[in-house]
Amino acid sequence: MKYPKRIKTLQKTLHRKKLDAILISQPENRRYLCGYRGGDHGIGETSGVLLVPVEGSIHLLTDFRFELQAKKEAPTAKVHLYPKGLLNLLKKILPQLGIEKLGFESHYTLHSFAHLLTTQLKKKGIRCIPSENLVERMRLIKDEEEIAVIRESVLLNEQVFGDIYKDINSFSTEIDVALAIEMAMRRAGAEDKSFDSIVASGGNGALPHAVPTQTKIKKDKPLTIDMGLVLNGYCSDMTRNFVPRKPSKKYIKLHRLVRKAQLAGIAAIKAGARCCDVDRAARSIIADGGYGPQFGHSLGHGVGLAVHEGPRLSSANKLKLKAGMIVTVEPGIYLPGWGGIRLENMVVVRDNGCEVLNQDKTWLDI
Amino acid sequence: MKYPKRIKTLQKTLHRKKLDAILISQPENRRYLCGYRGGDHGIGETSGVLLVPVEGSIHLLTDFRFELQAKKEAPTAKVHLYPKGLLNLLKKILPQLGIEKLGFESHYTLHSFAHLLTTQLKKKGIRCIPSENLVERMRLIKDEEEIAVIRESVLLNEQVFGDIYKDINSFSTEIDVALAIEMAMRRAGAEDKSFDSIVASGGNGALPHAVPTQTKIKKDKPLTIDMGLVLNGYCSDMTRNFVPRKPSKKYIKLHRLVRKAQLAGIAAIKAGARCCDVDRAARSIIADGGYGPQFGHSLGHGVGLAVHEGPRLSSANKLKLKAGMIVTVEPGIYLPGWGGIRLENMVVVRDNGCEVLNQDKTWLDI
Repeated sequence: MKYPKRIKTLQKTLHRKKLDAILISQPENRRYLCGYRGGDHGIGETSGVLLVPVEGSIHLLTDFRFELQAKKEAPTAKVHLYPKGLLNLLKKILPQLGIEKLGFESHYTLHSFAHLLTTQLKKKGIRCIPSENLVERMRLIKDEEEIAVIRESVLLNEQVFGDIYKDINSFSTEIDVALAIEMAMRRAGAEDKSFDSIVASGGNGALPHAVPTQTKIKKDKPLTIDMGLVLNGYCSDMTRNFVPRKPSKKYIKLHRLVRKAQLAGIAAIKAGARCCDVDRAARSIIADGGYGPQFGHSLGHGVGLAVHEGPRLSSANKLKLKAGMIVTVEPGIYLPGWGGIRLENMVVVRDNGCEVLNQDKTWLDI
Repeated sequence: MKYPKRIKTLQKTLHRKKLDAILISQPENRRYLCGYRGGDHGIGETSGVLLVPVEGSIHLLTDFRFELQAKKEAPTAKVHLYPKGLLNLLKKILPQLGIEKLGFESHYTLHSFAHLLTTQLKKKGIRCIPSENLVERMRLIKDEEEIAVIRESVLLNEQVFGDIYKDINSFSTEIDVALAIEMAMRRAGAEDKSFDSIVASGGNGALPHAVPTQTKIKKDKPLTIDMGLVLNGYCSDMTRNFVPRKPSKKYIKLHRLVRKAQLAGIAAIKAGARCCDVDRAARSIIADGGYGPQFGHSLGHGVGLAVHEGPRLSSANKLKLKAGMIVTVEPGIYLPGWGGIRLENMVVVRDNGCEVLNQDKTWLDI
């Protein structure tokens, strides 16, 4: 079973770092380690934390509202409730477990809570040690089982996109399209969207993170659709850009430039390539085309249990890619007033190149 | 205009706390102070921070993706971009503004970022001071303009509920109902749902935070619908519980008990009443009925720009209510295997009592 294996890997790291245990507060990390799917209502309202000791079995600490769910989804964990709050429960069970040095996820713990945790546990003789990305590092490389689920997630997302695209002229506003997408995802069996869908017509497409509005879809203007879903916990993320009626010459020129940059990025991806070099391979195409300043974000990001995770394909990231990493490749050009073009596919890094997970070819090679 | 007035109030607090400025990272606080609606993709991916100096004008720091939106939505703020990250921008502009003592929102800043911020700015001679809830405290009491918007949000939510309720027998699964609710909200003009709708049939209702499933709606079993929307930034939150066909005697008995507890809670609410006393007024009814242990959560919470905010109506909260606060009153009884009953309305605290914002009476007094 995968969870005990992952716990064992983490326990080896704890051993190396001389930690007696670690508190896992990050929701995707919790799910990765024990299967518990409880979602936080923002970081301030946790649905539980996982306590992983350096050896022995794991403990899922949660509250009354999530008791049944926790027991059902995380059979490998012992479930404890904290009717008087997490801190009080920790003060009770940490000494029982002989834990004197406790790691916590510094990158997913509020400063105010870390302060309370550290000062309160100190009184019990327990030291709190900020740790960063121990589980995220494990999640960077996907095994073949995870890759298979992500492939399914990508293909289901494409299927939903295809159905919407076919009917695109039947929709009136951006919000109509976004709602239809999200409804279709859930009907198709997705457990959720992986992020709020972007549907941006004309000038709205100049905002890379546009929020769908009541704007009518302009049939002769560029339309950006950026959408993703969650299937069995794993995310997909895809952007397509097209013109519902006839594209202008300018659109075609820019679209081809973005696609050329995307293909250059994809061609640069293989185990051993540095993220910054992949970013540059795509970025230089757009810069040579005269639109460097109009491509203001990085080329891509990892995707897995979270829709945005490592590694980041950015000009600053010197990390070398490894086989089994999954990243998006999504160059774009944004022109205020006119609109934007972004094309995004997902790929798996392989030893000698990469495998594009997307099958959909809509408006890629025009 | 409301934003300059709110900034002035915050600046008085900064003055009293001897802070030269504060960094506002919490999304609803940003919106409350300047109108900027940019949403974070989780706490790790901010869409900007607001820098409020102890005097003078305010600065909205964001990245390329949100530039147009920031300028449009926050005309009272000077917008700065951080192509090389927030920290680098802060290192540049804080000395220019003569800021030596900088507050940050400890309750909405990651421990890891607070550590970076503190150590990096120290090198520039700037001290970082953790602050908590300065803006949340302002947001506790709503002015009449805010109350009017929240009332509209509540009424629109009820209208959506009413349409779904009328057709409840036409839906097959929990997910179908949840999707129809969310679609109807957006079509009705809501900018979003205020949280993931809960639609829980039969035994699923025993989980207070149930996630809608493909479970068929059992016509003879209790059905819990907990839903809310966002209108002009302000949230609503309402729960109704009913049986699509004929309720059992047990259902009627428990439902009446929960409603009696709700009315007792509402009757206890007025300016000057302590939150814990309001909680007790409702809880004692359920305890007297023999279901104390089956009501495991607190009685209610504040609602405003956030769907969960202060004050909390809980047994531990000694805070005295003030006129203009808005809270939910939502007792519940949860029986594993059988299901749950929760009834939730929103009220405004007034000097001599409270005003129930809900008009809807569906299945309240059965």
